[in-house]
Amino acid sequence: MERNDALQIVKKHLTDKRYEHTLGVMETAVHLAETYGADVKKAELAAIFHDYAKFRPKEEMKQLIIDEQMDERLLQFHHELWHAPVGALLVQREVGITDEEILAAIRWHTTGRPKMTLLEKIVYLADYIEPGRRFPGVDDVRGIAAHHLDDAVLTAVKNTIFFLMSKRQPVFPATMDTYNDLIQNGEDV
Amino acid sequence: MERNDALQIVKKHLTDKRYEHTLGVMETAVHLAETYGADVKKAELAAIFHDYAKFRPKEEMKQLIIDEQMDERLLQFHHELWHAPVGALLVQREVGITDEEILAAIRWHTTGRPKMTLLEKIVYLADYIEPGRRFPGVDDVRGIAAHHLDDAVLTAVKNTIFFLMSKRQPVFPATMDTYNDLIQNGEDV
Repeated sequence: MERNDALQIVKKHLTDKRYEHTLGVMETAVHLAETYGADVKKAELAAIFHDYAKFRPKEEMKQLIIDEQMDERLLQFHHELWHAPVGALLVQREVGITDEEILAAIRWHTTGRPKMTLLEKIVYLADYIEPGRRFPGVDDVRGIAAHHLDDAVLTAVKNTIFFLMSKRQPVFPATMDTYNDLIQNGEDV
Repeated sequence: MERNDALQIVKKHLTDKRYEHTLGVMETAVHLAETYGADVKKAELAAIFHDYAKFRPKEEMKQLIIDEQMDERLLQFHHELWHAPVGALLVQREVGITDEEILAAIRWHTTGRPKMTLLEKIVYLADYIEPGRRFPGVDDVRGIAAHHLDDAVLTAVKNTIFFLMSKRQPVFPATMDTYNDLIQNGEDV
C-alpha cells in the first residue's frame, strides 16, 4: 500500500491533532528504520496505522477484546491501552493489511512487550519521540535514539512507568515485563 | 510455639546482624498486629521466621524452587528473592509450622503479591520499617504505617520499584502486581 493511500484511509479515523501526531510518528519511524536497518516501508505503514482505532467507542473495543480473546487483563486497565491491540485487529479486518510484523508493531505500540522485534521497537519509540511530543525527558530519549535503540526504548519505558506511578496510576504488566526484558536481555543497555 | 523457643531456633540460621533485624521485625509486626487487629501470635511467629532461609546456599534454594515447582520466573531474577518462598517451605519442613497464614506471610515478604492478607501486609511492612532500617523514604512509610496500612504498603512497594529501577535492576512481576492491586483495590489508598 502506498503512503498516500494509507494516509487517506487513516485520516478519516483521526482528529486533525491526532493526524498531525501520526505524520510525526511516520517520519520518525522511517528515520529510525533507516538508522537501524529495518524495513522502511513496513515501519512507515505501521506508523501510519498505529492509532487507527484510537477513537473507536470504548464499548466496541471492549467487545472486541472479549470476542477475539485478547488479553483480558486489558479490561482491568485504562481504556487508553485498548486501541493498540484493537487497532491491529481492525487494520487487518478493515484495511486488509495482513503482514504480521506490521500488525504486531501496531499491537504493542502502547504497552511494549518482552522480546520486541526491531519494527516494534521503532514504532514504540517513534510514538514516544515524534517531534510533536512535549514532556519531561523526551529530549533525552531523542538523543539516545540516535545511537542506541534498546537504550532509548528502555528509557522511554522507564519514564512511562515512573510517570504512571507518580500519578498513582496502574502499570500494565507487559510494560514492566518490557523493562525487565530490556534490562536482562537488551543488546546495548 | 513460644517466642523464645522460636527465637532460639532461628538464631542458629542467621548472622548476628540479621538476628538483630529479625528482632526489629518481630517487635514491629507485633505492634502493627495490635494496631490493625491481626493475630498477634501469628504475626510474631511469621516475623521471627521470615528470614529463616536467608543464608541457605544459592544452589540449595534453586533446587528447591525447581523440585517444589515454585514460580520458575524466580530463577530469572536476583537470588535475594529466593529466600522468602524457600523459607516458607523450610519453616514448614524443618520447624514444623503448618499454619498457612504464617507460611504465606513468610512466602510473600519480599515481593508482595496481589490480594495480600492482613498478616502478609504486616510482615512485609515490618520488614521494611523495623527500627534498624535506614534508607531514604523509610521515615515517611513509618509515619503512614501508624494510620493507613494499605497506603504504607503501597508506598513501600513504590519506593522499592523506584529504587530498583534507579539502579537498572529488574523488578519481579509480583511486585508490580502488588502495586497495581493496591492502586486498583486498596481500601485506603
